[in-house]
Parts: sequence; structure tokens; C-alpha cells
Amino acid sequence: MRIGVLTGGGDCPGLNAVIRGVVRKGINAHGHEFFGFRHGWAGVINNEGVDLTLDSTRGILHRGGTILGSSRTNVYKVEDGLNKVKAAMEANNLDALIPIGGEDTLGVAGRLHEDGIPVVGVPKTIDNDLAATDFTFGFQTAVQIATDAIDRLHTTAESHNRVLVCEVMGRHAGWLAVYSGLAGGADVILIPERPFDIDEVVDHLKRRHDRGATFSIVVVAEGATPKDGGLLTQYETKDAFGHVRLGGIGSMLERQIEEKTGFESRTTILGHIQRGGTPLAFDRVLGSRFGVAAVDAITEGNYGKMAALRGTAIEMVPLAEALAEPKLVDAELYETAAVFFG
Amino acid sequence: MRIGVLTGGGDCPGLNAVIRGVVRKGINAHGHEFFGFRHGWAGVINNEGVDLTLDSTRGILHRGGTILGSSRTNVYKVEDGLNKVKAAMEANNLDALIPIGGEDTLGVAGRLHEDGIPVVGVPKTIDNDLAATDFTFGFQTAVQIATDAIDRLHTTAESHNRVLVCEVMGRHAGWLAVYSGLAGGADVILIPERPFDIDEVVDHLKRRHDRGATFSIVVVAEGATPKDGGLLTQYETKDAFGHVRLGGIGSMLERQIEEKTGFESRTTILGHIQRGGTPLAFDRVLGSRFGVAAVDAITEGNYGKMAALRGTAIEMVPLAEALAEPKLVDAELYETAAVFFG
Amino acid sequence: MRIGVLTGGGDCPGLNAVIRGVVRKGINAHGHEFFGFRHGWAGVINNEGVDLTLDSTRGILHRGGTILGSSRTNVYKVEDGLNKVKAAMEANNLDALIPIGGEDTLGVAGRLHEDGIPVVGVPKTIDNDLAATDFTFGFQTAVQIATDAIDRLHTTAESHNRVLVCEVMGRHAGWLAVYSGLAGGADVILIPERPFDIDEVVDHLKRRHDRGATFSIVVVAEGATPKDGGLLTQYETKDAFGHVRLGGIGSMLERQIEEKTGFESRTTILGHIQRGGTPLAFDRVLGSRFGVAAVDAITEGNYGKMAALRGTAIEMVPLAEALAEPKLVDAELYETAAVFFG
Amino acid sequence: MRIGVLTGGGDCPGLNAVIRGVVRKGINAHGHEFFGFRHGWAGVINNEGVDLTLDSTRGILHRGGTILGSSRTNVYKVEDGLNKVKAAMEANNLDALIPIGGEDTLGVAGRLHEDGIPVVGVPKTIDNDLAATDFTFGFQTAVQIATDAIDRLHTTAESHNRVLVCEVMGRHAGWLAVYSGLAGGADVILIPERPFDIDEVVDHLKRRHDRGATFSIVVVAEGATPKDGGLLTQYETKDAFGHVRLGGIGSMLERQIEEKTGFESRTTILGHIQRGGTPLAFDRVLGSRFGVAAVDAITEGNYGKMAALRGTAIEMVPLAEALAEPKLVDAELYETAAVFFG
Repeated sequence: MRIGVLTGGGDCPGLNAVIRGVVRKGINAHGHEFFGFRHGWAGVINNEGVDLTLDSTRGILHRGGTILGSSRTNVYKVEDGLNKVKAAMEANNLDALIPIGGEDTLGVAGRLHEDGIPVVGVPKTIDNDLAATDFTFGFQTAVQIATDAIDRLHTTAESHNRVLVCEVMGRHAGWLAVYSGLAGGADVILIPERPFDIDEVVDHLKRRHDRGATFSIVVVAEGATPKDGGLLTQYETKDAFGHVRLGGIGSMLERQIEEKTGFESRTTILGHIQRGGTPLAFDRVLGSRFGVAAVDAITEGNYGKMAALRGTAIEMVPLAEALAEPKLVDAELYETAAVFFG
Repeated sequence: MRIGVLTGGGDCPGLNAVIRGVVRKGINAHGHEFFGFRHGWAGVINNEGVDLTLDSTRGILHRGGTILGSSRTNVYKVEDGLNKVKAAMEANNLDALIPIGGEDTLGVAGRLHEDGIPVVGVPKTIDNDLAATDFTFGFQTAVQIATDAIDRLHTTAESHNRVLVCEVMGRHAGWLAVYSGLAGGADVILIPERPFDIDEVVDHLKRRHDRGATFSIVVVAEGATPKDGGLLTQYETKDAFGHVRLGGIGSMLERQIEEKTGFESRTTILGHIQRGGTPLAFDRVLGSRFGVAAVDAITEGNYGKMAALRGTAIEMVPLAEALAEPKLVDAELYETAAVFFG
Repeated sequence: MRIGVLTGGGDCPGLNAVIRGVVRKGINAHGHEFFGFRHGWAGVINNEGVDLTLDSTRGILHRGGTILGSSRTNVYKVEDGLNKVKAAMEANNLDALIPIGGEDTLGVAGRLHEDGIPVVGVPKTIDNDLAATDFTFGFQTAVQIATDAIDRLHTTAESHNRVLVCEVMGRHAGWLAVYSGLAGGADVILIPERPFDIDEVVDHLKRRHDRGATFSIVVVAEGATPKDGGLLTQYETKDAFGHVRLGGIGSMLERQIEEKTGFESRTTILGHIQRGGTPLAFDRVLGSRFGVAAVDAITEGNYGKMAALRGTAIEMVPLAEALAEPKLVDAELYETAAVFFG
Repeated sequence: MRIGVLTGGGDCPGLNAVIRGVVRKGINAHGHEFFGFRHGWAGVINNEGVDLTLDSTRGILHRGGTILGSSRTNVYKVEDGLNKVKAAMEANNLDALIPIGGEDTLGVAGRLHEDGIPVVGVPKTIDNDLAATDFTFGFQTAVQIATDAIDRLHTTAESHNRVLVCEVMGRHAGWLAVYSGLAGGADVILIPERPFDIDEVVDHLKRRHDRGATFSIVVVAEGATPKDGGLLTQYETKDAFGHVRLGGIGSMLERQIEEKTGFESRTTILGHIQRGGTPLAFDRVLGSRFGVAAVDAITEGNYGKMAALRGTAIEMVPLAEALAEPKLVDAELYETAAVFFG
């Protein structure tokens, strides 16, 4: 077989492990050939890419990013998109596609499958909010980066009697906040799944300090919102030069906490460093296993599926399942984290 | 309730996370009190320990080792051991025990349970070879330390056209070798579960070099053995001063590979650095969850069990289950790693 | 002798190494006693502190922050400040003081020396902008944290064809930006010492992309300013929820670059993670040596001095020298970094 | 000009930073061309190499090892070596050479200079034992790797009441042992410069334990020797399988300490992981500056020199100076480290 591979959506540590897994298992065990489209679906639409070989996938396992590049192009929002996909596959003699990506990329994959294109997907999101799999690759790396940052903030908070707010990724699900907050010893964790009451947060921090604590760490997912469901109130902060900085949820919290408690507060927004760089061993292994499983499924004609981790096993599950409701933080895990808020 | 806690056996990153989890959930949610025995079962036998409080378990989450100390003492090999345990429990008004440890420590726990002592265990082994749980805490940290080392060896191997042998822990099971070898891009992985033929190893390395490779990485578990099942042949090596060093499996491999291929070879034995230091976020979370689950089980009178990870959930399983056959590396995982030996 | 120790100003990795060095050398070699004031000069003013012993300074070498706490209190801005210092010294039977801190803390130290208080200082700034010493402790740790972040941003920039702006600390001097930018392979480095022309920055990025580059990394010190010397123009950005975020120099650059080049751009502001956490070996060694040298100087009655690194030697220099003009980035270093902007 | 570049000797983090610095400054500022010989002097002798361009030196700054490969070939031990060097330079139209390497590589460079070949060297040794420069690149990275390992050993030593011996590199000079031992809080540091008396070591450890310490960390350079100057007595150890392991200085210490104190002891030999992998920012900056300075010197016809760090400046010093006596650990630094042995 000759198979097209592409990576779509935001960056995520472990993408190269998947590509390497697909190509090496495909060539060594099945005798396939591979064509890598550049920049996700955009490269399919524009028929831009390069052959993927044992040589071109050597030495990439530990590298962040994706050697294929990425984009957020959606085939079905491009005029005549489906036919362009078919044309690109024909032009490159491709029998099947392995798209690696998140909700959007796999959404396209699902529709292509319905439209008769042989496709097997690999799920990718550092947010870990896919119901079909226990974990997505890249998530543990992001958790570790955030935890390392919280560890660093901890010593400063302790030494300077401060409330330090750390804003991590997670628009719809708080997995990253809960994992890194639990691992980093956070005193408050705020997540999208649980709209918060700022007065409860403030009371909690005051009680901590009344009991003798001299500092607190607050971990907040970027998508966390106040309980009243209203628009996020934005607060101005001033930087070292007196210039106004207007922030999101992290800065809003910082300002409200400082105003309502009198404790000096500071915010750190981790941003894109959570998405890049060398993946943890966990994600290299998971990415490699996903890649191997995907190309095995393609070989068996097991189309319309994606690779998933279930316990310690890799299983193939319907793409549709991955595209169902996002997986939200479960109560047991959040309650475990909350044990340590005291 | 008043509960005794102890840690036994070799060091393992995440022990303090378990202790903290037990104590905080126990005090905050259940109103228990805790007594920490020093140095594992030795501290129970000698009635040596200290109360564990919210204060004494603060700031320990990210610290390696165990604040309680450890030992390899076995209650049932001490004269009148059982009665000494009962005496220590009575002396400290203890209603139950939470031992945290490996096969030996939990083996004692299992027998104490049979002898009527209320006990709930937490499994600990960096070898990950317990059948009852998907993962043990500390394992991912050990994998990451080994992978970081292999990453470093990689650049030297490349630059100097060498075969580098990396000996990692794992006496009976090769989990650490397979995970770190897969994550580190090893060209050969040798594990106890699969006795190896040195000539096959040598042939494989020669074929690699014939195809253009200029270096190779061999990851070997300390418990891997040659196929003929005979005694491990030991080889002498000489250090920079001409002094003889007589090594185990890693050095034996180095010598045989160098002799039979002519490729310059070197061995690194990672040793105790795999067991110590700050745990990864993964293991802090897993350890915390195990601790919380264990004290919940004690509270419910769910004795004779130990905490286990099943998929993403923590479950309580019978201690006897943990003490059954060790969990060996499964075929799928090893075959996935072998995809990349080419 | 009985000596008071205090730490003032912002957090900096290595403070505990200094404290440990002072106390251990002082006790073991000179037979001194030590009293640690809490929260910098505030603890002196309020006579708040604790004895420092071999035991209380054990196990702190690798820990970030300061076991003494810190503040920004200035003795000479407190009513009757000098007399309160004298009173606190008398109350605790202190013969001399060792303040560890930056410009402000050492400024107070210099005036106390003039006012007859026996004092020896240790310089602290992660900005490395003290003329009297080759390096300050904490700087290399901050450089490494920033470099690790830039390494992570690099892979994302490459994979997504972006300009990534990384804002690092440095209000008056660009040492951290130049070191981390040079180490991280930055394509543009903007520092306070060299006001920039946004059009030159934009032209440089365009030329890079014209020559085939698909991404760029811009490292900017928080204190860098546009050439026209005018007020920093502030730009609004919108976050994932459409909320306005108003940023400083990093966000301003991001917006202008995106507008003027059409390249997708993103900003990361590293913030407080540059100041906290475990120090690099370099800073543990430098902090330890500074501490040892300071207590030796106190013992010899060599007052009014501070410890400084000159080449590989620790020397004592007049406090006044440390308080002279800040050390700005020298031309050779910046030009070396600029070699790699191509 | 057209300039040959090569890297010789053992691996060292930062080699690629030097190559990149030489090539980028040479092309961008001076318009030179570059030819990279493979495998050190062997590639010159065999005229094996490849052009070095802006493209071929892209993305290598953070990578360990050397893209040119290395060897230990000595030109003057090869028959007709000098003429082969001349022939290779002529064949590739080279005007000058920039060898990057240690004592042996630069020794050849010095003799080539005397024999009329235009040459400028860059010093390389992770041992830091070159008198002509304050620091060599790669040293701080090796120190950090060793310190990270000692940090990990610390928690295990504490938890298990052990003496842990950590053997680091350093055959003739103990810089790495003193820096990592000081940074890691070692209780004993043994270096080649100071032959030790095993009974003094043992007495010191006993006194520590008598005063209440429950563990100790011993850092030993591979070249440290007992005071009597006799041959290193070798001791057998047994591994987990009962197989004899015969070790060098680390194992010898472990056995003698265990025998003479009764404290359980273990050895870790860090080996090649100290030489490989991504360089610290410090070494990337130093390597880049060395490379830039070397190509500037070549351009100015300032031959027979090598780059050196003096304080914060890069200076060119005669190759002969680098080849004089090795730089041994100075008394002040060792005594500072010894402050903390208590």
C-alpha cells in the first residue's frame, strides 16, 4: 500500500513519535510506502508533500513539533475540498490516509471515511479531553512542564508571602490544571467544569492564612469561569513601567484576590511552552504505539477508526466515538486534588 | 481511628506523595490520627516512630525518598514478630496499619491480614512488575531518568561511531528496559523475559552497520540472561588506569560485542540514580491517589486490600492478588519496541 | 562574634546557598553565632528573627527561595530606621550584619556602613547588572530557564510557521535576553541598552523569510523600548474567549510584527518562573563561595565590602563600587549574538 | 579564505555551538568558505569531509555530540602525517585550519603551527584542566549532570541510612568532583590533586554519624588515589545475581567504607552520560563565543593561538600556553568545598 500521513492543529509533544511509528512499522513489517503531506489538510488540498522513508524519519523521536508542519485548514470548508483530497490521493497513488490531529482534524477524517476514503486516525490533544482514550500523547509532557513551573513558583511564593496564580491551558476541560495542580501542591484549582465563586476562593485563602499559611498557589485553567455565568470581568494590571496590561482569567483572579485579601498576588501565564519541546518518555512510548497501531489497522482494512489507550492496551475505536462529547474531569480526581487544598 | 503508616524496601520516587495523601485525607475528611513507624517493619518491631500531622507532611510532595525511612526487615523472620507488631500497635493505640512497599512488605501485610491485623497496603516498585495494577508509582520517573541518560548517550554514540550499552534496573521483568529503550530509540533491548542469543545480537548490529548505521544503542535490563541458560559469563574490563573491572551483564555484552564486531563499545550502568530524587508529576498524582484510596479503604473497613490503578480509576484489590505471579512484559509492547530495532 | 543575616528584594535561586555558606563557615571555622532576621530589613526594624545553626541550615542548598523570607523595606525610609537597626542588633547581641540583596538592600548596607555599623554584603540580582562582579548568583539559573523555554518554543515555531516572541526579565540591562537568546538561537534580541526601530525588526524578519526561513524567534527584555524614545505604544490582543488582553513590550511586538509582516505571531511572557526553584550547580557554587567569603571578611573586620567574582576568584570589593552605574551588556557579547540573527 | 574545521577527542557538550559559531561568523561577516573534516585528524589524513554551510549548521546549537564526528588519531603518529595534512589542505583549497579538541588535538595543532600551517585552535575538555582559560565549554554541563545525579542519590541515602559513593570523571584534575560535590552537598570529595588516607575518610564518616548524621555522600574523581601512592587496591563486589564485579576507585571506597564503618554503602559510576546530550546555556554561549573568536583570529592572521575565557572576555592565547601544565584544583575552591564536609 501507499499511504498518506499528515498532522493538523496545535502543537503537541509526540507528533514525531507517531509519524516515526507509522512509517517504520509500515515499511519494515508491511512493505508499505508513505507520503507526508505538509501543513495538515492544507497540504492535501494543495498537494504539497514529500515521501517519508526510514531515513527521513530517523532521529526525530525526541524532537518536539512535527516534521510535517501543521495548519488548521478544514477540508470541508474549502471549495470542492473532498474532490481535492481525492485528486491529491490519486496524484500520489495513495490507498489510504492517516491523519494525526485533534477534534477538527479527526472530524474531517470521520467525514472522509463516510465519503468513502480509507482512513485511520490518531488522536492528538494536550488537553486530554477525548472520551475514547484514557490518555492522549503530549498531555503528560504538558503536565510536567506546568508542574515544573509550579515547583519554581512555590519557592518564590514561600519566600515572599504571596498568592501566586498560574494560568495553564484547558479551554473546555481542566485535566491539565487538575493534574499539574495536584502534582504541584496547589491550594486552589479552578477548572471549566466547575464555575467558581470568587468569594469562596477568597474565603478559602483567608482561612488558610488565618491557620498560619503565609502563601498560596492557585492553578487556573484558561477556560475557568466565575459561577454567575456572566461575562468574565476583566481587570487592568500595571507592569514595571506603569503600562496597563489587561488580562484574562489569571489576571482577573490576581486582582480580585489582592483586592479582597490584601495578600500580594502575581500571575504567570504559561502559554505556548506547554505545547513544545522534547516529549516525556511516556508520550514517546504512547505516540509510537499509536502510530504502530494505526498503520496495522490500515493494513487490515480496519478503516474509520482511531488508536486509543485503554488501560495498558492500545485499541482501535470508531472515529465517531472520539468526536462525541469531550471527556471532562471526573469527580473522583477533582475531589482527590481538593483533599490537599486545606 | 488511629492508624500506623510505614514504608519498606528500596527507594522509589513518590513515597512521600503516598504518605501525604494518607495523612491529609485521613485528617481532613475522616478525623483520623496517624503514627509513622521509622524504617519500615523494623520500626514496628522496635516501636520507633513519630506522629504524622498536617504540619509534618507539608512540603514533601516533590521530595524523593521517604520521610519515614525504610528497611528490608521482615516481621515473620523476626522472633515473635507478630506479637511485637501487636504490642507496637497497642502501645501507640493503633487501630490499623497502612504499609507502603513492594513484594516483601506487602507479603508481610498479607500475612498480618490473615493473622487478624486490620491492614490496607499501597504497592511500590520501580520495576512495575505487579500484576494487580496497570502502573506502580515511581516507574515513570525511573523510565524518564533512564531515557534522559539514553538521550545523552545517543549523541556520543553518533559522534564516535560506538556501540553504547546502557544497563538499567529490572531483575525479573524488563518493563523499565522496554519503556526507556522504546522512548530512547534503542536498537536492541534485552530483558529477563526473553533470554538472548549473543550471536543474534551481534548479527543484528552488524546488519545495521552494513546498512549504513555508524552507531548503536543497546539497552539491557540487569536481569537479562543469555539464551543457553548457563551462568552469566563474566568479562574483565580495564579502566583508564589499567585496573581490572569485572562487570555484570552490561560489561559482558560490551566485551562480547566489541570482540565479535570490532565496533568500539562502552557500558553505562545507571544504578541508584533510577530510584531517587523528585518524582515526575505522573508519579506524584498516582502516589497521592493511592494514599487517598488506601485511607478511604481503611475507614470503610475494607481490609486486606491494596490500591491499584485500572485504566484511569483507582480500585482496591486483594493483597493476595498483588502477591501472585509478577507481571512480565507483554508481547505487544515488546514487539512495538522491536519495530524500531531496524 | 554574633552576626545577623538577612535577605532582601526579589527572589533569586541561590539565596539559601549563601546563607548556608555564611553559617557553616562561620560556625565551623570561626566559632561565630548567627541570627537570621525574617523578611529582609523589615525583620531588623521589627526585631523578628531566629537563630541560624548547623541544623537549621541543613538540606537547603538545592532549594529555591530563601528560608529567611524577604521584603522590599528600606531602613532609611522608615522613621528612626537607623536607631531601630541599632536596637535590634543590641537586643540580639549582634556584632555585625551580612545583608544579601540587590541594589536597594546593598544601598542600605552602604549607608549603614557609613553610619558605623559593621557590615559586609553579598550581591544578588538575577539581572546580572552589577558592575563589581563578573556574575551574580541566580543569573545562570534564570538564563537556563529562559533557554529551556525558548527551546520549547522553537519546535512549535518551526511546525507552525510562526514568529514567537519571548519576553524575559531585564528592566535596565539585557543580560538575560542576550544570554538566553544566544543560547536559544534567537533570530532577534531586543534589549534596553539598544532602543529598537520596529521597521528594522520587521524588515529583518521579512528578509529571513524571503531567504527561506519559515519561522522566527524574537527574544525581548521587558525593558526594551522603541527607538523614538516615546511612550511604549500598547496594543490589545484577544484571548481564546475574545477577551481583550492589553500587553507590554512582548505583546506590542507580536501585534506590530503580525500586522506588518502577515506572519502569525504569539507572545510568551516567562515572568516569575525565571526567579524561583532549584538553582543550577553554577549558582550553588557561586552562592556558597560568596557566603564563605563574606563571613571571612566579617571575621577579618574587612567591613563595607561585598563579595564579587573576578575571573575564577572571589574578591571583596567596596560596597560603593557595587552601587555605581549598572553594568550594561557589552558590545562584544551583543555582536556575537547578532552573528546568528541571519 | 577557505578554512578547514575538525573536532577531535572525547565527546563534549557544546562542540556543535563552536562549529556553528565558526561557520556563521566566517560566512556572514568575512565571506569565508568552510570544509568540515570527518572524525578529527583521521578525516584530514584520509581527506574525508564535506562543505559546511549556513544550511548544514542550522538547528545544531542545542544538540550534543559533533556533526563532524571525532577520533583520537594523532597526525604525527601517522606515517608521513604532515604531508598528508598539507595534501588534504591543497586538495580542498584550504588556507587555514580550525581544530577543536583537547590536549592531543591541540598538541597536533601546535606542531602544525610550528611546521608552518596556519592554524587557530579551540580548547575542549569536560575536565576543565586547561591553564589558559577560566573555563572550557562542556564543563558546566558535566557538572550539572553530576549534580542532578547527586541530588537523586541524596534522597535515597537519607531514606536508607547509607553511604553513597558517586564516581565522576577527572583523571588528572578534580574540577568536576569539586564543583559537583560542592553543588550537591557532598560530605567527602576525593580528587587526584589530594591523595587520600582511607582511615581519615572513614574516621570523618564515623564522626559525622556519631554527631547524628544517618547518611553520607562521597564524591570521588576517577583519578583519585590513596595517599600511600601504592597501586589502587581492587575490591570485588557482588551484584544482585551473586556475580563478582571488580571495580575501580569508587567500588574500592564502597567496600572499604562498608568494612570499616559497618554503614551500608553503594557506588554509582556516572560514566559517559557526563559527556553527552544537550549543552547548558552557559556552554552554548561559551562555545559560540569561542567559535566566533577563532574565525576572527584566523581572518586577522593571528595564527598559533587558541580561544580562551578570561573573566567575561574572550581572548586569544598561544597554543603553547594551553599545552603547558594542566590546571589543577586550587586550594581556595577545595577549602570552600571542605567547609561543608562537617
